[in-house]
Parts: sequence; structure tokens; C-alpha cells
Amino acid sequence: MKRFFYILAAALCIAAIPANGQVKEDFKPAPNVQPGKQYPQVNSERCVRVRVVAPDAKSVKLDIGGVKYELKKDDQGVWIGESAPQDEGFHYYQLNIDGADVPDPSSLYYYGSSRWGSGVDVPAADEDFYAVKNVPQGEIREIYYWSEVNNAMRHCFVYVPAEYDLNPTKRYPVLYLQHGGGEDEHGWPQQGHTAQIMDNLLAAGKAVPFLIVMDNGSWTMPRPAAPAAAPTPQGQRPPQAPQGQRPQGGQRPQGGGGFAMPANWADGIADTFIKDLIPMIDSRFRTIPDAAHRAMAGLSMGGMQTKTITVAHPEVFSNLGIFSGGTITVADCKNNPEFAKTLKLVFVSFGSRELENRVAGFGDGTDPRQETEELKASGVDAHFYVSPGTAHEWLSWRRALYQFAQLLFK
Amino acid sequence: MKRFFYILAAALCIAAIPANGQVKEDFKPAPNVQPGKQYPQVNSERCVRVRVVAPDAKSVKLDIGGVKYELKKDDQGVWIGESAPQDEGFHYYQLNIDGADVPDPSSLYYYGSSRWGSGVDVPAADEDFYAVKNVPQGEIREIYYWSEVNNAMRHCFVYVPAEYDLNPTKRYPVLYLQHGGGEDEHGWPQQGHTAQIMDNLLAAGKAVPFLIVMDNGSWTMPRPAAPAAAPTPQGQRPPQAPQGQRPQGGQRPQGGGGFAMPANWADGIADTFIKDLIPMIDSRFRTIPDAAHRAMAGLSMGGMQTKTITVAHPEVFSNLGIFSGGTITVADCKNNPEFAKTLKLVFVSFGSRELENRVAGFGDGTDPRQETEELKASGVDAHFYVSPGTAHEWLSWRRALYQFAQLLFK
Repeated sequence: MKRFFYILAAALCIAAIPANGQVKEDFKPAPNVQPGKQYPQVNSERCVRVRVVAPDAKSVKLDIGGVKYELKKDDQGVWIGESAPQDEGFHYYQLNIDGADVPDPSSLYYYGSSRWGSGVDVPAADEDFYAVKNVPQGEIREIYYWSEVNNAMRHCFVYVPAEYDLNPTKRYPVLYLQHGGGEDEHGWPQQGHTAQIMDNLLAAGKAVPFLIVMDNGSWTMPRPAAPAAAPTPQGQRPPQAPQGQRPQGGQRPQGGGGFAMPANWADGIADTFIKDLIPMIDSRFRTIPDAAHRAMAGLSMGGMQTKTITVAHPEVFSNLGIFSGGTITVADCKNNPEFAKTLKLVFVSFGSRELENRVAGFGDGTDPRQETEELKASGVDAHFYVSPGTAHEWLSWRRALYQFAQLLFK
Repeated sequence: MKRFFYILAAALCIAAIPANGQVKEDFKPAPNVQPGKQYPQVNSERCVRVRVVAPDAKSVKLDIGGVKYELKKDDQGVWIGESAPQDEGFHYYQLNIDGADVPDPSSLYYYGSSRWGSGVDVPAADEDFYAVKNVPQGEIREIYYWSEVNNAMRHCFVYVPAEYDLNPTKRYPVLYLQHGGGEDEHGWPQQGHTAQIMDNLLAAGKAVPFLIVMDNGSWTMPRPAAPAAAPTPQGQRPPQAPQGQRPQGGQRPQGGGGFAMPANWADGIADTFIKDLIPMIDSRFRTIPDAAHRAMAGLSMGGMQTKTITVAHPEVFSNLGIFSGGTITVADCKNNPEFAKTLKLVFVSFGSRELENRVAGFGDGTDPRQETEELKASGVDAHFYVSPGTAHEWLSWRRALYQFAQLLFK
């Protein structure tokens, strides 16, 4: 389904190339170039151009959006070429040099698609909301912590607003913000521009200050597999398996990095959050440690995790956001009266191209906008947002955070 | 000179390969593998093995330590091969696929050699001192700040010890810790393992707690060039050029990334530190804002910056560390009486292989150990440390920080 969507999207893009096959020569370096480098570049038609020195190669391709574009070699051994127009926003990509998939040596690197590799931002008309500006600056804090559930050190990032250290007795609400499948805890601080979005919102007086915890949701649980159990919206959990094994080696805890979650992933992540992560955050930071002042949100897989965990743990979370990862329905509330009773805020969002193409699990005929409107009509403070002109990528989610943050904890 | 050293070092390493040309088959994934990946690997002989899928390539090489090693292709299009034995410690490397220098798609990436690219740690016998352990954990805080000198936002990291937020009225000394040429502010938090070294030292009661600020020292100044002036140990500065231009575009401030510093680099960095960075740190954190409780240290180019800035600004820094980047001599003190008067601590270190080969600018016949001993004999609290078996790389500097931190602010 996803593959089909990519092919469809690519076909739409290619259709936008001028009939003469020429691209407009107004390319500029993307924000993702390495210091001192000049590529990748993007032109006003949103085509992405790359350049690589490969004097002995027979074939070099740019692989972006599920399509491979042939580069051309000059007599100096320099390969250059460009993609069809891409959507505004952030796109993972790679080069293919004589059959080898490798990062572009000129770009900055991001964790996504289950690898550290190249990414490029096609400038968005509204990019100002996530730009680094001379406003009061919060911090992204990198923290390792011990997890009993995982019997290992884990790794997270915490956004702390600029005013936090200036108000040494004030306590703050907390948003737990999850990445998508094939991504890890670096996603929101890097591709997501979490700190810039929040600093700019706070400087404009459009949000109340809160902490944002960004942890790893795709980390394979180190325990022997528990009896297989589907995610349980009712909150029952399968019997606990013995604990004690450490995750894969290396001196840094590392993400499992895959879309294939173990059968007990929701259980493992919920346990990690509730038994280890949240107590660590509540002891380390001046939080307001109750459900009303705690939110969870996530994109794609992280949205599914958000739904599973918040529905099962209304004593922990009263606010939730699902970005390109499903909905909360009236039935979810009817079936979970405790959840319905304490629920304060529901935010659901998609990129417009996802809705058009009904991907992300919505090929079942349901309409997430209608589901959210029904939820709202039932008395829940529910919001539905569509990011214009974007698909299942980070510009959709930057905008979702920008919208969601203005609603939270007010 | 450096090139000669690499060739010499490579020759020594190659000499260690068994006469039959076979490598020992006890390779294990290095700590630098990406999540879910298995390469690069290192064996007990300290050879580095890489693997890459490149079915249509004619030639694939591993480029490490200034030497290129040919990989061999199997009938599945998978290339595999290994280097001669490397020193213990951290090494930048890359792959060369049909003439294209690219990162290894399996490794984690680091900023060094003026590019984001692959790195591999050959396990060190003493690696425990920089391992992530279940001890009280400090934080690495990522901060953007406005610089009047540069007329731009800049970017730094600050290590904050675990006890900082538990002692809300206590004030702390600060170490300003600089990376080397072709590196940037990511070097110390990532390759340097600053947080782990400090957390482990503090947990063992071997150091007093202090903050560590890691900023970018190779950022090209955005001002029009001032009249050319060599770094001036006496503290005279060339006339200030008009300010006002922004550095290169992109939404994130980015390092200039080169060994070639503008003629006024020392002046520009000193101005940035003294007018912008230090006031920001002293206002944002609970520091002890005097020279006695402020230190500067750096590796290689950062060590040279440290000497230039601390000698010229004894009112700002009374403690300094130079890792593989020069010495402080009795003559430096004689020529700078204010510096000599307030100087509290001098720490000078090298990797043993640097000393043996007299690289890093010491081909002039001077002996840094003797110079430091003379300085000590003159009454300065001076220390000289040699990292055993390492060259001009990060294990030398991790060990230097480990030693230096135990002497600081006591």
C-alpha cells in the first residue's frame, strides 16, 4: 500500500516536469548541506539536485521518494542530476553508486528508514515557524537513565523551555512525544525542530510552557518473548516474562531500528514509560506529576503507541495527539469509560496527501475527520488538523506539533 | 610531516600482520555500528573489517589512517575486507567505491576531517572510564545563543553534572573545552564522551563537579578580513573590522569546517568567547564567574587557541589544558607577567606516538616534557601527561580530559 502510494506520488511529481525536460536553473543549497559543502540543492520547482565525485563509476543514481533518478557524469568524473519536483518538507534520500546504497557525502545525516543517512528539506512557505531565531532559547537536554524494565541504560532527549531555570520553584506539564517506525529519539529534536517550534511559539505567546520528552519507541524489548498478545486497548497485559537480559551490545544503547515490532512492543514500551521513564522525569524535573498535566503524542507508529498507551492508562495521561497514526473514536471512549472520564484533549492530524490517498492504515473506508467530528460532538475537546500539500513526512509533523502545542495545557 | 607520520605508522602496523597474511577471525561489531547493523568490526589484532553491498562496483576500498585497503567481492555482490592493525582508540574512515569517497552506510557518523563521516573505535584496554554506566547521570544541553560579534545565532553544548539541579543555590566552576581542526562542537560530546568521563569521575569521587562548555572554534568569522595579523600572545589585537554580515545561510549555524583558519581567527574566537559566550553562560548557569574558577582547554588547534586566549586574557582564565597542541613555557610566563601572576594550573598532554614521531608542530627540536618540567620548577602547578600507545586521535584526548578533570578546581 505504502509502495503504491510512493509510486503514485512519484507519478504525480514527474507529471509536473516541463515538457521540454529542462529544470529551472535557480538551485540553492538546502539547509541540510554539511558545513562548507554546496549540495544537496533545491530549485523553485522543488527539484532536488545532488553532486558526487565518482570518476570510475558506471552508474550513479539519486534515490528519493521511492524513485531512482540517473545522474550524468562530466569529463572530470563529477556526477550531477536532479529529481522530479518533491513535496515541500523533509525527505530521506540516498545515492546509489554502482549498485551500492550510500549516504550523500555532502549532506547532513538523520536517523530514519532504519538507518542514519541523507535528508533534504524542500523549503516550505511557512518554514519560519521552525527556524532558529533570536528569541529566548530553550534547551535540548540529552539524558541517559537506568531502566529496570529493560535492565539497561536508555537514552532520551528533553526539551526544556527558556524560562525553566529562571523560575526555580515553578512546576511544568510534560508532553511525551514519539517518533515513527524506523526512526528513533533523534527524530523530534533533529528532523522535527522541536526546540525551534516551541521557542518561537513561546516567544509569540501562543503556547504555555511545558517540557517535551523524546524517547525511543522502537527499541526491541530485551526480555524473552511473552506469550503473544495483540495490543490491548482495554489495558490487560500478558503475564510478565522474566527480565534480565541486556539489549544488543555497544557502549551506547541503540534503537532496534525497524518497522517490525515484537508482538509485545506496546506492552514493553508502556512498561518502560510508566515504570522507568515517567518516574525519572518526575524526579529529575519540576513537573506537575498528574494525568491532567501529562500528554502523549506521536507520529505514525508513535501515534499508534500513543493511542494504545493512553487508552490503557487514563491514570497517567489525559491529553493525547496522534499525527498520521490513527484516530480516537466514540467507540474507543464507550469501551473505556475510565479513559473517557478523564480525557481532556484529543488532537488528530494528517498530511493532506495521506488523506487523499488513504494510506497509513486508512484504506478501510473510515474517515478520520468524520470520526474526530463525531468525537467532538460527543463532548470531547477533539481537534482535527490537515497539513496542506504534505504526505507522510516531517513537515506534516512539525506543523502538527505547532498546532497541538497551542492547545495543550490551557 | 603528518603524511610522513601516517605512512610510517601504517608501515609499522602492516609489519604486525602475520607472515601468512591471515587475519584472526575473532571480529566483533564496533561500538560505532548503526542500530541493527553489524559492521564495522574489529578483531583482537585491532584490524578493522568493513562490509558493503555494491554488486556493480569494480573496486571498493577501506580508507583509514591514511592508507587504502582493497576489499574483495563475493558472488553475491558483497564486498568485505580489513585494514592492517590500528592503534587503540577512535579513527575516522571512509569507503571508496569506484573512485567515490563515501561514508560507510553501516557506521555511525561523526564530524571530523571537515566532514560528517564514518568513525570506528578500536576497543581500548581502559575503555571503562568512558563507558555509559549506571551512575548519577549529568546532561549534555544543546543551546543556541545570539552572538553580537558574529551577528548570528551560534550553537554550543554544555555538560551539566548530575548534582546541579539538586543543589539549586550552589555555584559551579566552568571549563571551556575546544575541539581540533576540521572538527566542531559535536566532537567532545560525541567522539570525546565528555559526559561519560565526567559522570564516572564524579561517581568515583575523583573530580569536583564543574560545567563544561563545548563551542565551535573553527567557525569562520563573518566580518570582512581585518588587517592580517598573526595570533598575538601579548594580547594586542588588530583593529576591529566592521561587523554585520551573517555567516553562510541555512537554518542552523554551521561550522566552517576547515584547517585553514583566517588570519584573524584567534582574535575572532577570543572576541566571541569573551563578549558573547562567557556572558551567556554566566547568566544562564549558576557559575562562579571569575578567572580562578574558569578554565580553557582544547585539543590540537583547540590547544593552540587555548594558549593564545588564556595568555592574552589572564583576567578571564587562570587554568588551562593543552592536549596535543603545544606547551606553556617559562618564557611564556616571563613575557606575560599578568598571566604568570594569576596562573593556577597548566596541563599539557600528548599521545605517546606523537612524541615519538615529533609531529604536531614539534619537529623544532623542543621537548614538551622538558618544557613543562621547567615550568613546574619555576613554581607553576604544571602537569605533563602522555597517553600510552596513541597518536593524534580521540583516545589521547579522552584520557587527557580524564587526567585534567582530576586536577581542576581543587
